[in-house]
Amino acid sequence: MSPLAKDAVIKFGSFVVTSQVFHTTPLSYALVNLKPLLPGHVLVSPRRVVPRFHDLSAAEVQDLFLTVQRVSRMVERVFDATSLNIAIQDGVDAGQSVPHVHAHIIPRKREDLADKGGTDAIYGMMNGEEGDLGGQLRERDGKEKEQGQRIRFPAVDADESRKPRSEEVMVQEAEWLADEMAKDEVGGPEV
Amino acid sequence: MSPLAKDAVIKFGSFVVTSQVFHTTPLSYALVNLKPLLPGHVLVSPRRVVPRFHDLSAAEVQDLFLTVQRVSRMVERVFDATSLNIAIQDGVDAGQSVPHVHAHIIPRKREDLADKGGTDAIYGMMNGEEGDLGGQLRERDGKEKEQGQRIRFPAVDADESRKPRSEEVMVQEAEWLADEMAKDEVGGPEV
Repeated sequence: MSPLAKDAVIKFGSFVVTSQVFHTTPLSYALVNLKPLLPGHVLVSPRRVVPRFHDLSAAEVQDLFLTVQRVSRMVERVFDATSLNIAIQDGVDAGQSVPHVHAHIIPRKREDLADKGGTDAIYGMMNGEEGDLGGQLRERDGKEKEQGQRIRFPAVDADESRKPRSEEVMVQEAEWLADEMAKDEVGGPEV
Repeated sequence: MSPLAKDAVIKFGSFVVTSQVFHTTPLSYALVNLKPLLPGHVLVSPRRVVPRFHDLSAAEVQDLFLTVQRVSRMVERVFDATSLNIAIQDGVDAGQSVPHVHAHIIPRKREDLADKGGTDAIYGMMNGEEGDLGGQLRERDGKEKEQGQRIRFPAVDADESRKPRSEEVMVQEAEWLADEMAKDEVGGPEV
């Protein structure tokens, strides 16, 4: 059972993602990914489904980024990382694929993408087939994949990590990360 | 004269950037770029020089992203854009080149990078020679450019936009953007 199955349904754009959610606040939530680009790649969104960053109230902006900070600290610790990419594609012409504000948090470590072109290959990946959240979620939900909607970078080499993860695997990760968030809250922030 | 020349010196990492600053808040500031990747590409930083996002206090996080939101709204309007890339490279292994937290804000419009590979070419650019803020600032200040410090994407084709801008041009842009920020504050946020 998802750690949050008792709560109301949580939507990411038009998609139900309740079982992928591992942390909620009054105005934000964090979810695991169907196809993480690297281990620990998660998303943080406002609970309110709005497309653009300028649509958020001051309270939503503040809650969202305090949540990003807490989740960032947790994934960096849990996935034994040394750095993080934090990115928002704010609008279609910036590569946004689901019209619901979301911050990508991607834990990084030294030479983690050495075989894919180096540190900054993450950006091509974010925007290739691997990073097309909308397309992935439409496929999962049996919705027809829209053709020609986005200009894409060539997809990186096919490998095992590109297969969508099962519901069971995502629920397990969500439960694990929910526990890890709770540890940070008990222990207080790292200094 | 910079709009903020009367204020104390403002530092971005170890670099003095006072004349590039167009907006300040109690805990944050926004500055124009030496080599913008696209027109209106600006940065927002905490006033306190700390390297990592997790180093920021809750008050700093909140102030930083309310500032990012206000500045984003202004540059999207002034540069006639339709979307924005907002990104933090949080740590060396995520591509950070100046050890001072900074959010990139890059106004985007439809097909603005059609000649460079499409919407998502911005990421390669952020991390190529053009996006290497540390290297650019060291060159400007006559400091030796460190060799082999970062793994870089191949630089995009050389063109006029890659020449570092003069101090005069940056000060003019900072004055202009300071005026535009003031307009938003008078008129209140767009609905």
